[in-house]
Amino acid sequence: MKKIRCDVLVIGGGPAGGVSAVTAKMNHPTKEILVIREFEKQLVPCAIPYIFGKTLGSSEKNIASCGMANEMGISTLLGKIKDIDIKEKIAYSDEHTISFDKLIFATGSQPFVHSSLHHSLELNGVFTIAKNKALIDELKDYSDIRDNIVIVGSGFIGIELAVEMAINGKNVTVIGGSKHILKNAFDSEIAMEAEELMLSHGVKYIGEDRVVEIIDKNGDNIVNGVKLKSGLLVDAEVVVLATGYKPNTELAQKVGVSLGHYGGIWVDEYMRTENHDIFAVGDCSSRRDFITKESSKVMLASTSAAEGRVAGSSLYDIKYLKGFSGTIAIFSTMIGKTAFSSAGVTEEQARLAGIDVVIGTFSGMNRHPSTIPGAQRQFVKLIAMKHGGQVIGGQIVGGEETGEMINLIGLIIESHSDIYRVMSMQVATQPMLTAAPTNYPIVMAAIMAINTIECI
Amino acid sequence: MKKIRCDVLVIGGGPAGGVSAVTAKMNHPTKEILVIREFEKQLVPCAIPYIFGKTLGSSEKNIASCGMANEMGISTLLGKIKDIDIKEKIAYSDEHTISFDKLIFATGSQPFVHSSLHHSLELNGVFTIAKNKALIDELKDYSDIRDNIVIVGSGFIGIELAVEMAINGKNVTVIGGSKHILKNAFDSEIAMEAEELMLSHGVKYIGEDRVVEIIDKNGDNIVNGVKLKSGLLVDAEVVVLATGYKPNTELAQKVGVSLGHYGGIWVDEYMRTENHDIFAVGDCSSRRDFITKESSKVMLASTSAAEGRVAGSSLYDIKYLKGFSGTIAIFSTMIGKTAFSSAGVTEEQARLAGIDVVIGTFSGMNRHPSTIPGAQRQFVKLIAMKHGGQVIGGQIVGGEETGEMINLIGLIIESHSDIYRVMSMQVATQPMLTAAPTNYPIVMAAIMAINTIECI
Repeated sequence: MKKIRCDVLVIGGGPAGGVSAVTAKMNHPTKEILVIREFEKQLVPCAIPYIFGKTLGSSEKNIASCGMANEMGISTLLGKIKDIDIKEKIAYSDEHTISFDKLIFATGSQPFVHSSLHHSLELNGVFTIAKNKALIDELKDYSDIRDNIVIVGSGFIGIELAVEMAINGKNVTVIGGSKHILKNAFDSEIAMEAEELMLSHGVKYIGEDRVVEIIDKNGDNIVNGVKLKSGLLVDAEVVVLATGYKPNTELAQKVGVSLGHYGGIWVDEYMRTENHDIFAVGDCSSRRDFITKESSKVMLASTSAAEGRVAGSSLYDIKYLKGFSGTIAIFSTMIGKTAFSSAGVTEEQARLAGIDVVIGTFSGMNRHPSTIPGAQRQFVKLIAMKHGGQVIGGQIVGGEETGEMINLIGLIIESHSDIYRVMSMQVATQPMLTAAPTNYPIVMAAIMAINTIECI
Repeated sequence: MKKIRCDVLVIGGGPAGGVSAVTAKMNHPTKEILVIREFEKQLVPCAIPYIFGKTLGSSEKNIASCGMANEMGISTLLGKIKDIDIKEKIAYSDEHTISFDKLIFATGSQPFVHSSLHHSLELNGVFTIAKNKALIDELKDYSDIRDNIVIVGSGFIGIELAVEMAINGKNVTVIGGSKHILKNAFDSEIAMEAEELMLSHGVKYIGEDRVVEIIDKNGDNIVNGVKLKSGLLVDAEVVVLATGYKPNTELAQKVGVSLGHYGGIWVDEYMRTENHDIFAVGDCSSRRDFITKESSKVMLASTSAAEGRVAGSSLYDIKYLKGFSGTIAIFSTMIGKTAFSSAGVTEEQARLAGIDVVIGTFSGMNRHPSTIPGAQRQFVKLIAMKHGGQVIGGQIVGGEETGEMINLIGLIIESHSDIYRVMSMQVATQPMLTAAPTNYPIVMAAIMAINTIECI
């Protein structure tokens, strides 16, 4: 056993761990920061679908860079922590004992598979989408030479993978548990638009049904298809279970760190566990929603990075006041040439949570005049409090600019801005880059929401 | 003389007038709103440069739509108001007497030309960039069949016109009064990058010199070139004076409405003149800067639209609290495949205004991983208060998404957010649409600015 001594030990080298380490080093340049991670090459999680088509085409093109951490003098160790003596502040891997002063859990998440299907994971041809290069390469090698693919799950990863594989010539069927795809991020009318685009790329969609059995009809340990609750059988040479992720908390639980809702590690606004020398960030931590204040299952690298910045600057003292509390789900995806983005709660989620909302929508063009080459439709929906007018959600359909526009709505939500302020918000417009100044769609949607309130 | 009666008379049909009218009608559906304007077809002002190349190719492709105003039942009249009896509330055109209850000046701006060059405007081949279809068509017909173009002025319109004409095969020289182009929006190091791109498209640039004479060497009333202060002579068949705009206030002055600084009509935060039945919006109104509180010469359709929304909802009572005071200059432009955007004050402007600032910069890629096809460099510079950390300016260089990213910085400025909040701001990132979550450049630039403060 080799003995190592560090000041801050970060367990996990994904976005949350990486950002925690970099932020810790920036704030405490004299401290020894050590990141321990399991794999030499770490995938960029949200780009995994693009490995399976022509966009990236290979996992080697999807490796996260560690350049910054290395330059800053952050140490990295390959290995896996098996046990921790919390009281003595010593962590144990198979080869090392590591003494630390502060500990950050950034152990991430792993694919969630319904217990009824656990045993099927042993069949050849059945995969999950693990954030693990070796397993992703296995799926790629296996699926590249086969044609009939079933993807179970209609969240972002499942849909992005389906479209990428379909464009690459595969026969892809998505089995979604809900009537329409992407239901956690989009209201039905917008989800249907995304769904139609997905179908136009040749993907088949079976909604409101679910897989009850994964079939190996020849008993040769090779998958042949799936059986649905409705009785329908769908042939498949490859079955990909994209049914969400669950926090990796095995180690934390083993060493007695308390969990919060949904099994994530409990943390306060500064990402501290009950023991203030121990922090947790990213998918392994417990999150609650910024708006509803209910537990949130949203797992996003962007949220993880924000958490890493808070943890890294709150290790030895609380350096910066945490101005918000809770996760704002801000998502984007691209289907063909159309981008779909969402921030905050959807109208359906708001109504389910008993929030009294008004809606404003506006449809225009993303360039002005609309004769600018490449101009395409841009649609904005805002969800606001009926009383007070604070914006609590937004959805956008448009061109590639949508991915940054949604960050504007994200900040409107995070700063508790209301539709009255959005109405006279100052923005830049430029013919080649944005909608018209007279019809800037976020402003127009706010105006429509105001009109709705006035008419009530 | 035909007599007309309306409740709200809007003089001018540009972005400020149009948005004022639409907002007034939304807020007061029973009121009769009348817009009087001079031209049947109104150009989209900021797309005028694109008429001169292949992007639009014709002024007919650059006509602002009036569909919304017509649908809402807003009346339009072609004509020009020559006089107003403020006390009796009657406006006079050559053909109409119009009685009104509320009046909105939205008379816009016209090209500014230095007095020493006024007489040269009569030469054939010398033009300004007026927001007037007939005059723009004249410039286009004249320049389309000629090759040597001199553009005087290195602001957005001048530079966009220069690049568009150069791509279209013209021999274009820009004479800028400043060392580098776009000096009101960008610090030198970024302006130089834009300048190099402009040069790479074949445009020639002469900075730090100015036109002292426009030459007609044969005395035939046809321009041959320009003479510069340095003595340099530049040949030209066409000279375009793109040296800024001045507010159209002739009518307002004639009828006794007070002006503010720089000759614009004086207005308060609700766009009211001293007489609360009379409003002014857009380029004809007087503006001051959001940060420096000094007079501002910035003229932007997006600002005009925001002002129109305030005026249109404050006509009969103050319906919505005006949450900000002053113009935030938020600009974008595109040179080739690279977009340049700016919001608030530049570092140079801040230092000139005696503001104690810190700077944070970050350079990364606009997609992640950087192997995503089409990924390009993205650079962000933030200017923040050294004490307090409020963000007061930002500049971005990147792909087309830059045009919406700058609106995020605009809102950060407008909401008086500081670099500490930006540091843990929640954003969406997606491989095909944005930078990496771990290196989102606006957040990283804020962190760099914080580090600068900590090291002082």
